[in-house]
Amino acid sequence: MDVLVPFSVTAPKTRLAGILSADERAEFARTMLADVCTAITDSGGSPTVLSTEQFDCEWSLITDERPLTAAVNDRLDPPIAVVMADLALATPTALSTLFDADGEVVIAPGLGGGTNAIVVRHPDFYTDYHDTSLADHRRIAAEVGATVTEIDSFRLAVDIDEPEDLVELALHGTGRASTWLEDAGVDLALQPSGGRTTITRDRD
Amino acid sequence: MDVLVPFSVTAPKTRLAGILSADERAEFARTMLADVCTAITDSGGSPTVLSTEQFDCEWSLITDERPLTAAVNDRLDPPIAVVMADLALATPTALSTLFDADGEVVIAPGLGGGTNAIVVRHPDFYTDYHDTSLADHRRIAAEVGATVTEIDSFRLAVDIDEPEDLVELALHGTGRASTWLEDAGVDLALQPSGGRTTITRDRD
Repeated sequence: MDVLVPFSVTAPKTRLAGILSADERAEFARTMLADVCTAITDSGGSPTVLSTEQFDCEWSLITDERPLTAAVNDRLDPPIAVVMADLALATPTALSTLFDADGEVVIAPGLGGGTNAIVVRHPDFYTDYHDTSLADHRRIAAEVGATVTEIDSFRLAVDIDEPEDLVELALHGTGRASTWLEDAGVDLALQPSGGRTTITRDRD
Repeated sequence: MDVLVPFSVTAPKTRLAGILSADERAEFARTMLADVCTAITDSGGSPTVLSTEQFDCEWSLITDERPLTAAVNDRLDPPIAVVMADLALATPTALSTLFDADGEVVIAPGLGGGTNAIVVRHPDFYTDYHDTSLADHRRIAAEVGATVTEIDSFRLAVDIDEPEDLVELALHGTGRASTWLEDAGVDLALQPSGGRTTITRDRD
Protein backbone atom coordinates (compact mmCIF):
# COMPACT_ATOMS: atom_id res chain seq x y z
CA MET A 1 0.00 0.00 0.00
CA ASP A 2 1.30 3.46 -0.95
CA VAL A 3 0.82 5.77 2.02
CA LEU A 4 0.96 9.56 2.07
CA VAL A 5 2.04 11.01 5.42
CA PRO A 6 1.28 14.75 5.49
CA PHE A 7 3.72 16.72 7.62
CA SER A 8 3.93 20.39 8.51
CA VAL A 9 7.50 21.55 9.07
CA THR A 10 6.67 25.05 10.31
CA ALA A 11 5.35 25.49 13.86
CA PRO A 12 3.95 22.01 14.39
CA LYS A 13 1.93 20.97 17.45
CA THR A 14 1.09 24.49 18.63
CA ARG A 15 -1.55 23.14 21.05
CA LEU A 16 1.31 21.63 23.07
CA ALA A 17 2.88 25.07 23.57
CA GLY A 18 2.07 25.05 27.28
CA ILE A 19 4.27 22.01 27.80
CA LEU A 20 6.93 21.99 25.08
CA SER A 21 8.98 24.85 23.60
CA ALA A 22 8.89 25.57 19.86
CA ASP A 23 12.17 23.73 19.28
CA GLU A 24 10.98 20.79 21.34
CA ARG A 25 7.69 20.63 19.48
CA ALA A 26 9.55 20.51 16.17
CA GLU A 27 11.79 17.71 17.41
CA PHE A 28 8.86 15.84 18.95
CA ALA A 29 6.85 16.10 15.72
CA ARG A 30 9.73 14.62 13.70
CA THR A 31 10.12 11.83 16.23
CA MET A 32 6.43 10.96 15.89
CA LEU A 33 6.77 11.10 12.09
CA ALA A 34 9.64 8.62 12.32
CA ASP A 35 7.53 6.28 14.47
CA VAL A 36 4.61 6.48 12.06
CA CYS A 37 6.75 5.85 8.96
CA THR A 38 8.48 2.94 10.70
CA ALA A 39 5.13 1.40 11.65
CA ILE A 40 3.90 1.82 8.06
CA THR A 41 7.05 0.15 6.71
CA ASP A 42 6.75 -2.66 9.28
CA SER A 43 3.16 -3.24 8.18
CA GLY A 44 4.33 -3.69 4.58
CA GLY A 45 3.34 -0.20 3.41
CA SER A 46 5.44 2.36 1.50
CA PRO A 47 5.37 5.77 3.17
CA THR A 48 5.89 9.03 1.29
CA VAL A 49 6.16 12.13 3.45
CA LEU A 50 4.09 14.94 1.96
CA SER A 51 5.77 17.94 3.53
CA THR A 52 5.12 21.66 3.49
CA GLU A 53 8.83 22.13 2.79
CA GLN A 54 12.06 20.22 2.27
CA PHE A 55 13.90 18.78 5.24
CA ASP A 56 16.37 16.02 5.97
CA CYS A 57 14.24 12.89 6.01
CA GLU A 58 15.05 9.20 5.67
CA TRP A 59 11.85 8.42 3.77
CA SER A 60 10.68 9.38 0.32
CA LEU A 61 9.65 13.04 0.47
CA ILE A 62 7.61 15.34 -1.75
CA THR A 63 6.82 18.95 -0.97
CA ASP A 64 3.67 20.98 -1.41
CA GLU A 65 3.18 24.23 0.45
CA ARG A 66 -0.58 24.34 -0.05
CA PRO A 67 -3.08 23.45 2.69
CA LEU A 68 -3.51 19.79 3.57
CA THR A 69 -6.69 19.07 1.60
CA ALA A 70 -5.40 20.44 -1.71
CA ALA A 71 -2.00 18.82 -1.34
CA VAL A 72 -3.54 15.41 -0.59
CA ASN A 73 -6.26 15.53 -3.25
CA ASP A 74 -3.70 16.23 -5.99
CA ARG A 75 -2.03 12.90 -5.18
CA LEU A 76 -5.06 10.76 -4.36
CA ASP A 77 -4.43 8.07 -6.98
CA PRO A 78 -6.21 4.88 -5.77
CA PRO A 79 -5.41 2.58 -4.15
CA ILE A 80 -3.69 4.86 -1.68
CA ALA A 81 -3.74 5.59 2.03
CA VAL A 82 -3.26 8.83 3.97
CA VAL A 83 -1.98 8.46 7.53
CA MET A 84 -1.42 11.41 9.84
CA ALA A 85 2.12 11.99 11.07
CA ASP A 86 1.09 12.34 14.73
CA LEU A 87 -0.37 8.86 15.24
CA ALA A 88 2.37 7.97 17.69
CA LEU A 89 0.40 5.00 19.08
CA ALA A 90 0.03 3.37 15.66
CA THR A 91 1.39 -0.16 15.49
CA PRO A 92 2.02 -2.32 12.43
CA THR A 93 -0.91 -4.50 13.58
CA ALA A 94 -3.33 -1.58 13.75
CA LEU A 95 -2.17 -0.27 10.37
CA SER A 96 -2.44 -3.71 8.77
CA THR A 97 -6.04 -3.94 9.98
CA LEU A 98 -6.68 -0.62 8.24
CA PHE A 99 -4.88 -1.47 5.01
CA ASP A 100 -6.42 -4.95 4.77
CA ALA A 101 -10.04 -3.95 5.50
CA ASP A 102 -12.56 -4.24 2.70
CA GLY A 103 -14.24 -1.07 1.47
CA GLU A 104 -13.78 1.52 -1.26
CA VAL A 105 -13.14 4.02 1.51
CA VAL A 106 -11.76 2.76 4.83
CA ILE A 107 -11.57 5.28 7.66
CA ALA A 108 -9.84 5.19 11.02
CA PRO A 109 -11.75 7.93 12.88
CA GLY A 110 -9.85 10.25 15.19
CA LEU A 111 -10.98 11.71 18.49
CA GLY A 112 -13.25 14.69 17.93
CA GLY A 113 -14.42 13.78 14.45
CA GLY A 114 -11.06 13.72 12.70
CA THR A 115 -9.91 11.36 9.98
CA ASN A 116 -6.65 10.01 11.30
CA ALA A 117 -6.09 7.51 8.54
CA ILE A 118 -7.94 6.63 5.36
CA VAL A 119 -7.61 4.15 2.52
CA VAL A 120 -9.07 5.26 -0.80
CA ARG A 121 -9.89 2.72 -3.51
CA HIS A 122 -12.61 4.68 -5.33
CA PRO A 123 -11.51 6.99 -8.19
CA ASP A 124 -14.05 9.75 -7.47
CA PHE A 125 -13.47 10.11 -3.74
CA TYR A 126 -11.67 13.22 -2.49
CA THR A 127 -10.72 14.44 0.96
CA ASP A 128 -11.85 17.46 2.95
CA TYR A 129 -9.85 17.91 6.12
CA HIS A 130 -11.62 21.05 7.32
CA ASP A 131 -13.81 20.94 10.43
CA THR A 132 -15.37 17.55 11.31
CA SER A 133 -13.67 15.65 8.49
CA LEU A 134 -15.16 12.30 9.48
CA ALA A 135 -18.65 13.61 8.73
CA ASP A 136 -17.43 15.18 5.49
CA HIS A 137 -15.75 11.98 4.36
CA ARG A 138 -18.89 9.96 5.07
CA ARG A 139 -20.88 12.47 3.02
CA ILE A 140 -18.40 12.56 0.12
CA ALA A 141 -18.26 8.75 0.00
CA ALA A 142 -22.07 8.63 -0.17
CA GLU A 143 -22.10 11.27 -2.93
CA VAL A 144 -19.66 9.37 -5.14
CA GLY A 145 -21.24 5.99 -4.33
CA ALA A 146 -18.26 4.53 -2.47
CA THR A 147 -18.71 1.86 0.22
CA VAL A 148 -17.32 2.93 3.60
CA THR A 149 -15.75 0.82 6.34
CA GLU A 150 -14.84 2.36 9.68
CA ILE A 151 -12.08 0.76 11.74
CA ASP A 152 -12.45 0.40 15.52
CA SER A 153 -8.96 1.23 16.77
CA PHE A 154 -7.93 3.23 19.82
CA ARG A 155 -4.32 3.31 18.57
CA LEU A 156 -5.40 4.98 15.34
CA ALA A 157 -8.00 7.21 17.03
CA VAL A 158 -5.52 9.07 19.22
CA ASP A 159 -3.57 11.72 17.35
CA ILE A 160 -1.14 13.63 19.55
CA ASP A 161 -2.49 17.16 19.43
CA GLU A 162 -3.59 18.17 22.90
CA PRO A 163 -1.84 17.91 26.28
CA GLU A 164 -4.17 15.08 27.37
CA ASP A 165 -3.02 13.05 24.36
CA LEU A 166 0.44 12.88 25.93
CA VAL A 167 -1.15 10.76 28.68
CA GLU A 168 -2.07 8.17 26.07
CA LEU A 169 1.44 8.27 24.61
CA ALA A 170 3.00 7.81 28.04
CA LEU A 171 0.69 4.88 28.82
CA HIS A 172 0.55 3.14 25.43
CA GLY A 173 3.52 4.29 23.38
CA THR A 174 6.12 1.77 22.28
CA GLY A 175 8.30 3.84 19.95
CA ARG A 176 10.77 6.69 19.94
CA ALA A 177 8.19 9.38 20.68
CA SER A 178 7.27 7.91 24.06
CA THR A 179 10.95 7.63 24.96
CA TRP A 180 11.46 11.23 23.83
CA LEU A 181 8.57 12.31 26.05
CA GLU A 182 9.97 10.48 29.04
CA ASP A 183 13.44 11.97 28.47
CA ALA A 184 11.81 15.42 28.33
CA GLY A 185 10.48 14.86 31.86
CA VAL A 186 6.82 14.62 30.89
CA ASP A 187 5.10 12.17 33.18
CA LEU A 188 1.67 11.20 34.45
CA ALA A 189 0.16 13.33 37.20
CA LEU A 190 -1.70 11.64 40.03
CA GLN A 191 -5.45 12.23 40.13
CA PRO A 192 -6.46 11.55 43.72
CA SER A 193 -9.81 13.23 43.08
CA GLY A 194 -10.72 10.92 40.21
CA GLY A 195 -11.20 11.71 36.56
CA ARG A 196 -8.83 11.15 33.72
CA THR A 197 -5.12 11.17 34.28
CA THR A 198 -3.28 14.33 33.23
CA ILE A 199 0.40 15.04 32.73
CA THR A 200 3.03 17.08 34.49
CA ARG A 201 6.54 18.08 33.48
CA ASP A 202 9.65 18.00 35.55
CA ARG A 203 12.16 20.37 33.91
CA ASP A 204 15.09 19.55 36.26
CA MET B 1 -19.43 -14.68 30.07
CA ASP B 2 -20.80 -13.28 33.33
CA VAL B 3 -20.45 -9.52 33.26
CA LEU B 4 -20.68 -7.09 36.17
CA VAL B 5 -21.86 -3.62 35.17
CA PRO B 6 -21.21 -1.18 38.04
CA PHE B 7 -23.74 1.65 38.21
CA SER B 8 -24.07 4.63 40.49
CA VAL B 9 -27.67 5.70 41.00
CA THR B 10 -26.96 8.89 42.95
CA ALA B 11 -25.72 11.96 41.08
CA PRO B 12 -24.21 10.23 38.05
CA LYS B 13 -22.19 12.02 35.33
CA THR B 14 -21.47 15.18 37.34
CA ARG B 15 -18.85 16.28 34.82
CA LEU B 16 -21.69 16.81 32.32
CA ALA B 17 -23.37 19.31 34.67
CA GLY B 18 -22.59 22.20 32.31
CA ILE B 19 -24.73 20.62 29.59
CA LEU B 20 -27.36 18.43 31.26
CA SER B 21 -29.47 19.01 34.38
CA ALA B 22 -29.35 16.56 37.30
CA ASP B 23 -32.56 14.86 36.19
CA GLU B 24 -31.32 14.65 32.62
CA ARG B 25 -27.98 13.20 33.70
CA ALA B 26 -29.80 10.50 35.70
CA GLU B 27 -31.97 9.63 32.70
CA PHE B 28 -29.01 9.73 30.31
CA ALA B 29 -26.97 7.45 32.59
CA ARG B 30 -29.77 4.87 32.66
CA THR B 31 -30.11 5.07 28.89
CA MET B 32 -26.41 4.35 28.49
CA LEU B 33 -26.69 1.48 30.99
CA ALA B 34 -29.49 0.01 28.86
CA ASP B 35 -27.34 0.29 25.72
CA VAL B 36 -24.39 -1.38 27.45
CA CYS B 37 -26.47 -4.24 28.88
CA THR B 38 -28.14 -4.79 25.50
CA ALA B 39 -24.76 -4.92 23.74
CA ILE B 40 -23.48 -7.40 26.35
CA THR B 41 -26.56 -9.60 25.85
CA ASP B 42 -26.22 -9.37 22.06
CA SER B 43 -22.58 -10.46 22.35
CA GLY B 44 -23.70 -13.57 24.25
CA GLY B 45 -22.79 -12.28 27.73
CA SER B 46 -24.93 -12.20 30.89
CA PRO B 47 -25.01 -8.75 32.48
CA THR B 48 -25.58 -8.18 36.20
CA VAL B 49 -25.98 -4.57 37.23
CA LEU B 50 -23.96 -3.88 40.38
CA SER B 51 -25.74 -0.83 41.69
CA THR B 52 -25.20 1.50 44.63
CA GLU B 53 -28.91 1.12 45.38
CA GLN B 54 -32.08 -0.58 44.20
CA PHE B 55 -33.92 0.76 41.17
CA ASP B 56 -36.32 -0.47 38.53
CA CYS B 57 -34.11 -2.34 36.11
CA GLU B 58 -34.81 -4.95 33.43
CA TRP B 59 -31.57 -6.83 34.07
CA SER B 60 -30.35 -8.87 37.00
CA LEU B 61 -29.44 -6.40 39.77
CA ILE B 62 -27.43 -6.61 42.97
CA THR B 63 -26.75 -3.72 45.31
CA ASP B 64 -23.65 -2.68 47.21
CA GLU B 65 -23.28 0.81 48.57
CA ARG B 66 -19.52 0.60 49.03
CA PRO B 67 -17.04 2.25 46.64
CA LEU B 68 -16.52 0.65 43.24
CA THR B 69 -13.30 -1.25 43.95
CA ALA B 70 -14.58 -2.99 47.09
CA ALA B 71 -17.94 -3.83 45.54
CA VAL B 72 -16.32 -5.34 42.45
CA ASN B 73 -13.56 -7.25 44.24
CA ASP B 74 -16.08 -9.01 46.47
CA ARG B 75 -17.67 -10.53 43.36
CA LEU B 76 -14.58 -11.15 41.22
CA ASP B 77 -15.09 -14.90 40.78
CA PRO B 78 -13.25 -15.91 37.57
CA PRO B 79 -14.01 -16.13 34.75
CA ILE B 80 -15.83 -12.82 34.93
CA ALA B 81 -15.88 -9.48 33.19
CA VAL B 82 -16.47 -5.95 34.45
CA VAL B 83 -17.80 -3.47 31.92
CA MET B 84 -18.48 0.18 32.75
CA ALA B 85 -22.05 1.40 32.37
CA ASP B 86 -21.08 4.49 30.37
CA LEU B 87 -19.53 2.74 27.35
CA ALA B 88 -22.28 4.01 25.10
CA LEU B 89 -20.23 3.27 21.93
CA ALA B 90 -19.76 -0.41 22.82
CA THR B 91 -21.02 -2.81 20.16
CA PRO B 92 -21.54 -6.57 20.40
CA THR B 93 -18.57 -6.96 18.02
CA ALA B 94 -16.24 -4.90 20.23
CA LEU B 95 -17.39 -6.75 23.35
CA SER B 96 -16.99 -10.15 21.69
CA THR B 97 -13.41 -9.25 20.81
CA LEU B 98 -12.84 -8.47 24.49
CA PHE B 99 -14.57 -11.58 25.83
CA ASP B 100 -12.91 -13.90 23.30
CA ALA B 101 -9.36 -12.61 23.67
CA ASP B 102 -6.77 -14.89 25.24
CA GLY B 103 -5.17 -13.80 28.49
CA GLU B 104 -5.66 -14.30 32.22
CA VAL B 105 -6.42 -10.60 32.42
CA VAL B 106 -7.81 -8.85 29.32
CA ILE B 107 -8.12 -5.08 29.49
CA ALA B 108 -9.90 -2.56 27.28
CA PRO B 109 -8.10 0.66 28.27
CA GLY B 110 -10.09 3.86 28.59
CA LEU B 111 -9.05 7.37 27.69
CA GLY B 112 -6.88 8.89 30.38
CA GLY B 113 -5.62 5.63 31.87
CA GLY B 114 -8.94 4.14 32.88
CA THR B 115 -9.99 0.50 32.73
CA ASN B 116 -13.24 0.58 30.81
CA ALA B 117 -13.68 -3.16 30.59
CA ILE B 118 -11.76 -6.11 31.94
CA VAL B 119 -11.96 -9.89 31.80
CA VAL B 120 -10.49 -11.74 34.77
CA ARG B 121 -9.55 -15.40 34.52
CA HIS B 122 -6.85 -15.51 37.22
CA PRO B 123 -7.98 -16.30 40.80
CA ASP B 124 -5.53 -13.93 42.52
CA PHE B 125 -6.17 -10.83 40.44
CA TYR B 126 -8.08 -7.96 42.04
CA THR B 127 -9.12 -4.54 40.81
CA ASP B 128 -8.10 -1.05 41.92
CA TYR B 129 -10.18 1.63 40.25
CA HIS B 130 -8.51 4.58 41.94
CA ASP B 131 -6.36 6.99 39.94
CA THR B 132 -4.72 5.58 36.77
CA SER B 133 -6.32 2.16 37.04
CA LEU B 134 -4.75 0.86 33.84
CA ALA B 135 -1.30 1.20 35.38
CA ASP B 136 -2.51 -0.37 38.63
CA HIS B 137 -4.08 -3.30 36.82
CA ARG B 138 -0.90 -3.92 34.83
CA ARG B 139 1.06 -3.87 38.11
CA ILE B 140 -1.37 -6.14 39.98
CA ALA B 141 -1.40 -8.65 37.10
CA ALA B 142 2.40 -8.74 37.15
CA GLU B 143 2.43 -9.20 40.94
CA VAL B 144 0.05 -12.19 40.82
CA GLY B 145 1.72 -13.65 37.71
CA ALA B 146 -1.24 -13.22 35.37
CA THR B 147 -0.77 -12.79 31.62
CA VAL B 148 -2.24 -9.53 30.29
CA THR B 149 -3.79 -8.77 26.92
CA GLU B 150 -4.80 -5.24 26.01
CA ILE B 151 -7.54 -4.73 23.42
CA ASP B 152 -7.21 -2.02 20.77
CA SER B 153 -10.76 -0.62 20.58
CA PHE B 154 -11.89 2.97 20.20
CA ARG B 155 -15.47 1.95 20.99
CA LEU B 156 -14.39 0.53 24.34
CA ALA B 157 -11.89 3.32 25.05
CA VAL B 158 -14.46 6.11 25.08
CA ASP B 159 -16.46 6.29 28.29
CA ILE B 160 -18.96 9.12 28.35
CA ASP B 161 -17.72 11.29 31.19
CA GLU B 162 -16.70 14.66 29.80
CA PRO B 163 -18.50 17.06 27.44
CA GLU B 164 -16.08 16.20 24.62
CA ASP B 165 -17.13 12.55 24.89
CA LEU B 166 -20.60 13.54 23.73
CA VAL B 167 -19.00 14.40 20.39
CA GLU B 168 -17.98 10.78 20.03
CA LEU B 169 -21.45 9.59 20.98
CA ALA B 170 -23.05 11.94 18.44
CA LEU B 171 -20.67 10.76 15.70
CA HIS B 172 -20.42 7.04 16.48
CA GLY B 173 -23.40 6.07 18.63
CA THR B 174 -25.91 3.54 17.33
CA GLY B 175 -28.11 2.97 20.39
CA ARG B 176 -30.67 4.68 22.55
CA ALA B 177 -28.18 7.04 24.22
CA SER B 178 -27.26 8.75 20.96
CA THR B 179 -30.95 9.17 20.12
CA TRP B 180 -31.55 10.54 23.62
CA LEU B 181 -28.73 13.04 23.09
CA GLU B 182 -30.12 14.18 19.78
CA ASP B 183 -33.61 14.57 21.26
CA ALA B 184 -32.09 16.68 24.05
CA GLY B 185 -30.80 19.10 21.42
CA VAL B 186 -27.12 18.31 21.88
CA ASP B 187 -25.34 18.59 18.54
CA LEU B 188 -21.90 19.07 17.04
CA ALA B 189 -20.50 22.60 17.00
CA LEU B 190 -18.65 23.81 13.92
CA GLN B 191 -14.93 24.35 14.38
CA PRO B 192 -13.92 26.74 11.60
CA SER B 193 -10.64 27.43 13.37
CA GLY B 194 -9.59 23.78 13.42
CA GLY B 195 -9.09 21.46 16.34
CA ARG B 196 -11.38 18.79 17.64
CA THR B 197 -15.12 19.12 17.25
CA THR B 198 -17.04 20.25 20.33
CA ILE B 199 -20.74 20.20 21.14
CA THR B 200 -23.43 22.77 21.61
CA ARG B 201 -26.97 22.51 22.95
CA ASP B 202 -30.12 23.98 21.54
CA ARG B 203 -32.66 24.13 24.38
CA ASP B 204 -35.56 25.30 22.24
